[in-house]
Amino acid sequence: MKCRRCKAPAVIDVRRHNAAFCQDCFLHHCREQVRRSVEDHRMFSPQERVLVAVSGGKDSLALWDLLRTLGYQADGLYIGLGIGEYSDTSGTFARDYAAANGLTLHEVDLRGEFGFGVPEAAAATRRAPCGACGLSKRHLFNSAALEHGYDVLATGHNLDDEAAVLLGNVLRWETGYLGRQHPVLPAAPGFVRKVKPLIRLGEREMAAYCVLQGIDYIVEECPMAAGNRHLGLKEVLNSLEDRSPGTKAAFLFGFVERGHERFAEATESDRSALRPCTSCGAPTPAEICAFCSLRARATAPVAVRPSR
Amino acid sequence: MKCRRCKAPAVIDVRRHNAAFCQDCFLHHCREQVRRSVEDHRMFSPQERVLVAVSGGKDSLALWDLLRTLGYQADGLYIGLGIGEYSDTSGTFARDYAAANGLTLHEVDLRGEFGFGVPEAAAATRRAPCGACGLSKRHLFNSAALEHGYDVLATGHNLDDEAAVLLGNVLRWETGYLGRQHPVLPAAPGFVRKVKPLIRLGEREMAAYCVLQGIDYIVEECPMAAGNRHLGLKEVLNSLEDRSPGTKAAFLFGFVERGHERFAEATESDRSALRPCTSCGAPTPAEICAFCSLRARATAPVAVRPSR
Repeated sequence: MKCRRCKAPAVIDVRRHNAAFCQDCFLHHCREQVRRSVEDHRMFSPQERVLVAVSGGKDSLALWDLLRTLGYQADGLYIGLGIGEYSDTSGTFARDYAAANGLTLHEVDLRGEFGFGVPEAAAATRRAPCGACGLSKRHLFNSAALEHGYDVLATGHNLDDEAAVLLGNVLRWETGYLGRQHPVLPAAPGFVRKVKPLIRLGEREMAAYCVLQGIDYIVEECPMAAGNRHLGLKEVLNSLEDRSPGTKAAFLFGFVERGHERFAEATESDRSALRPCTSCGAPTPAEICAFCSLRARATAPVAVRPSR
Repeated sequence: MKCRRCKAPAVIDVRRHNAAFCQDCFLHHCREQVRRSVEDHRMFSPQERVLVAVSGGKDSLALWDLLRTLGYQADGLYIGLGIGEYSDTSGTFARDYAAANGLTLHEVDLRGEFGFGVPEAAAATRRAPCGACGLSKRHLFNSAALEHGYDVLATGHNLDDEAAVLLGNVLRWETGYLGRQHPVLPAAPGFVRKVKPLIRLGEREMAAYCVLQGIDYIVEECPMAAGNRHLGLKEVLNSLEDRSPGTKAAFLFGFVERGHERFAEATESDRSALRPCTSCGAPTPAEICAFCSLRARATAPVAVRPSR
């Protein structure tokens, strides 16, 4: 197997592109894919300040590394979710990367600052933890970006992530979610612009990028996510991709090009009908935003049953 | 396990409905599902003449049986596709059912009337046979329904079929196909109305209906379809349905309710831009329709390579 670009011996193949690459050309390939995503979707300019949501995993650390390499102004934001040893370890990887590269890493600790972690939130809602976790992260990413004056928030969602989310949304025809699923979600009052520069790169490519670039990251999956619906959807897409390489990319980019606009209209009007949360000021359709409401439930004293 | 309706011992469970049924109540359930589909989507009235596309398989024979039981005027149409023993056997099941019930069965023989069968069409196009087969069936169903003056053509596509087709269309965001995928495709100049009354019933329910109702049908899958993309999509949906019963129904009916209309617009203008095929008169965007063009290729004398 030879590198498509320089004909040297290849170290990795990318079936979707029917190509193989040597180490240098693979890193170049990753940079090119991110450069194209950022430029094609006008995600941000070199003059804008980008805040990268950093989890300590391969995707977010690779994203931060790629954006810096491409010359963008990118700082990091790490949120401690209070998921025991998993959170401790992932925080260490995020801090070590920032320190080794002389970069600014902001930190928010969910339990320290708001009095609860994801396990308590999951217990309070009696639902899968991923819902409470995602809700908390979206809220804190947005408020931190606004607070520190960043122009845009970048997340490490890769092709596999986005295709699985899209499949989940399509299987239930969640028209509101379909209207909001796009590589760029524009800013709105109370909302910073949100972008996903890794949509042209798959999970395996991101792991390879970190290994070849010498970036240490937490390899374990979150222990609270085991068996969740999202992972089942990824499996299904992997079996389709095995049979027909390029399926995921055609699915996601076909949606971006020909599907999304058909669902986008309602999203705009949804957003314009929001008002500030009476507790924290974040935009919400209700009196109290979903995060403050989750916080209230997760930090409420445990109800004691009256004895009969 | 007891019957949900009458509490007698059940003979079949339907996980999607979280229900089990005895023989009589299961047959009643099937009739109810078809009655609802026909009425909810205004497919046809008891005064209209329905032509059922009958293959000799479980779905089309059950559909014919269900429509007659519900009191509709339904005749059958069998197309001999020239797929060797498979076609001979399937034709026998269709004829036997019609004879046993004193029903009218029209027949069209592809090789006898047009000079080619599906194997020759597949060889001529050098593609998967299912494409040429589907194209031929659509053309012949439509022209036979028009020729014999039927108001509507009914096909035996069940929930599993439609969900798999929808998944295939969504994975590639085939917007034209998405606009045409609906339980009712209205009539247009040169096109009879087309309906799918079995969309509320799954593959397993149709097989059970035939067994419990004493209808003999061809059990073998078409030998030319083995390993095709459609069957792979069915497998994927089956694995999702196993994990979460109701997935297929939510996917298909969610599309019908909230997705389809977003893709339908282009379909109307596509159809209005058609003109008659100069060979057979069927509506086509080109000079010669796809069926006549397939026929020309499938019946052309084999080109002899000049010897050097």
